[in-house]
Amino acid sequence: MSQELISERVPAPESSVGLVEKHFATLFAEQPLRTDGGAEFGPVEVAYETYGTLNEARDNAVFVCHALTGDSHAAGRYEDEDRKPGWWDGFIGPGKGLDTDRYFVICANVLGGCQGTTGPGSLNPKTEQPFALDFPVITVGDIVTVHQGLVRHLGIEKLLAVVGGSLGGFQVLEWATRFPDAIRSVLAIATGPHLSAQGIAFNAVGRRAIFSDPSFAKGRYYANGDGLGPELGLAIARMLAHITYLSEDSIEMKFGRRLQDRDEFAYEIGRETEFQIESYLHYQGSRFVQRFDANSYLLLTKAMDYFHLEESHGSIAKALGRTDARFLVVSYDTDWLFPPSQSRDITAALIEARRDVSYVDLPSPYGHDSFLIEVDQLSSIVGPFLERTSAT
Amino acid sequence: MSQELISERVPAPESSVGLVEKHFATLFAEQPLRTDGGAEFGPVEVAYETYGTLNEARDNAVFVCHALTGDSHAAGRYEDEDRKPGWWDGFIGPGKGLDTDRYFVICANVLGGCQGTTGPGSLNPKTEQPFALDFPVITVGDIVTVHQGLVRHLGIEKLLAVVGGSLGGFQVLEWATRFPDAIRSVLAIATGPHLSAQGIAFNAVGRRAIFSDPSFAKGRYYANGDGLGPELGLAIARMLAHITYLSEDSIEMKFGRRLQDRDEFAYEIGRETEFQIESYLHYQGSRFVQRFDANSYLLLTKAMDYFHLEESHGSIAKALGRTDARFLVVSYDTDWLFPPSQSRDITAALIEARRDVSYVDLPSPYGHDSFLIEVDQLSSIVGPFLERTSAT
Repeated sequence: MSQELISERVPAPESSVGLVEKHFATLFAEQPLRTDGGAEFGPVEVAYETYGTLNEARDNAVFVCHALTGDSHAAGRYEDEDRKPGWWDGFIGPGKGLDTDRYFVICANVLGGCQGTTGPGSLNPKTEQPFALDFPVITVGDIVTVHQGLVRHLGIEKLLAVVGGSLGGFQVLEWATRFPDAIRSVLAIATGPHLSAQGIAFNAVGRRAIFSDPSFAKGRYYANGDGLGPELGLAIARMLAHITYLSEDSIEMKFGRRLQDRDEFAYEIGRETEFQIESYLHYQGSRFVQRFDANSYLLLTKAMDYFHLEESHGSIAKALGRTDARFLVVSYDTDWLFPPSQSRDITAALIEARRDVSYVDLPSPYGHDSFLIEVDQLSSIVGPFLERTSAT
Repeated sequence: MSQELISERVPAPESSVGLVEKHFATLFAEQPLRTDGGAEFGPVEVAYETYGTLNEARDNAVFVCHALTGDSHAAGRYEDEDRKPGWWDGFIGPGKGLDTDRYFVICANVLGGCQGTTGPGSLNPKTEQPFALDFPVITVGDIVTVHQGLVRHLGIEKLLAVVGGSLGGFQVLEWATRFPDAIRSVLAIATGPHLSAQGIAFNAVGRRAIFSDPSFAKGRYYANGDGLGPELGLAIARMLAHITYLSEDSIEMKFGRRLQDRDEFAYEIGRETEFQIESYLHYQGSRFVQRFDANSYLLLTKAMDYFHLEESHGSIAKALGRTDARFLVVSYDTDWLFPPSQSRDITAALIEARRDVSYVDLPSPYGHDSFLIEVDQLSSIVGPFLERTSAT
């Protein structure tokens, strides 16, 4: 059984952006970042990648916002031997949805993350120790403020588009409210104006699993003698979250009730991977802890919980009406973490605000993860939308 | 805020069965129970309660099968001072759905449970130590075999009805296949012919949380010096499962995004109960570990995963067609753990098998837990159904 739901659909490398490099920018060195929570904070190191070429008019830049556990490596490979390309490689490249023959695509790791941008694992200059949970609690707005800082740092006055799915979608919506004049279009995919209370509930259980792990050590696990963090707890959080990314149909389709490597029940309570779906989730959990920091997981899920356009601005229409940008809103019919009704709420609010909006509910069996998997379908809509935005 | 979603709707104690007592029966003392997994096992102590009076013809007995974390205390109170009555008190009593003026109602704790019936916390006579995970891995069929043993022990040849929701629903369906001539009707509520792969996935994460807790000690935690078991892990499993018992709408309705005891975000990552839904889940988790044994949780969720009428019998129609009993199938429109489609599958199979079946999909905002909450609605259907069964 292939354990990789997503990689199956990644297109051939020859249509890729090729070899890429991670860059770093130091921001907020002179004027510190003031977070929504009231902390003052700087400098901030930002890890980012770019694909394609910035044109002379500097008006063909597209900023890609990654989801909860993504990073700046959205496309291409660091080395020819890399087993896998960036996480949205099927969507970014020559002739693809984000066409690197036309556009200059930027993707940066989020503030509070663990893939190069300053986060809880970074050294606190005041103590020479990792911040751990002394890192300020951040919001989606803080993340976007840092990204907008990077855009200015790259000499770009106005982005052609901001594009993101899930938590990336929160960021592009926030961008519209916080920097309304810095963008010409917003592509909000598999997202909503807030996380549902059910979503907060799942996040709360995931965080509980991390807090419960004795290796968590109040977040100061970087100094654990064995070098291990709360890996058991983080794996549980990931397994749980992963269920919410899949549709019931996609689980049935891919795994059903098939057993792993046997024909009959084992009748052993300790056999944790009896069904294929169990084996898959355990694999996802164990792989995740190798690449992700538990403190970042705590911070970023909290930022998701806090995000709420209506609470912050009175209404979605007031929030998003601040910009004149064109909107493309995309949902997936089997997504139950961000159900289509949330995208319809965004769309209705934009119509109410007399803004230019297109909305598509795409059919896909893959649930919330569809935006990472069904990239050809997405490309066929995003391509023309960006062309038209570019021409207006 | 009331933390008790369920107790709000429990009717006044005066309509209750009054004071009740837990009884015990010793079964399989001479001839051991042979489990589906191939273990031989006995004697089995069974904790049970009865409400109402068995008539002279001994044909008015109704057996209630409890769900995953239920027990034999389905109605009434042990003492006048008890804060809460049995778990289905609103449904069982004089003039209620299971009318104790007419019927003799029996409810027993399941095999492998932790409320009086032999389970992993019971002493293994061979070692004088608790069984822990030497307890055989059991199936829904093993649970029903023990319950049917109790019914015979009480001198009842044929039950008027077997009634159960969720895992209790699995039991009544299994009863129809295993003891087809011992029942006159089957009331299968908020259940299905098997657990979905998504349901197995949630169970797998819950079990992982228990296995990950260092206090689990491979199930031998009864001997832990501090007397504590894997309470952190079991609480996580419960919090997670609890989300699946509620509908998204009921979470929105009851908690929404309201904060617990504050008006503004705390911006503290360690504050685990910032939103009311978090506070509610933490409370549910902490309360659950006071009354439930983690090893029982492992065993019973595994029994749920294993249950599958189609796999066991070739088809649902073949499985349920073994009995001539009348069926009442009830689903709830907001139940996503056992969605109405599963009840429709049962109903269609019974029609195919030329059996007598009524199916109702009840509207309720409470998701899977509706069968425990919306008891008046359920009573209005079950009452007439049992009357008619009784008369035929």
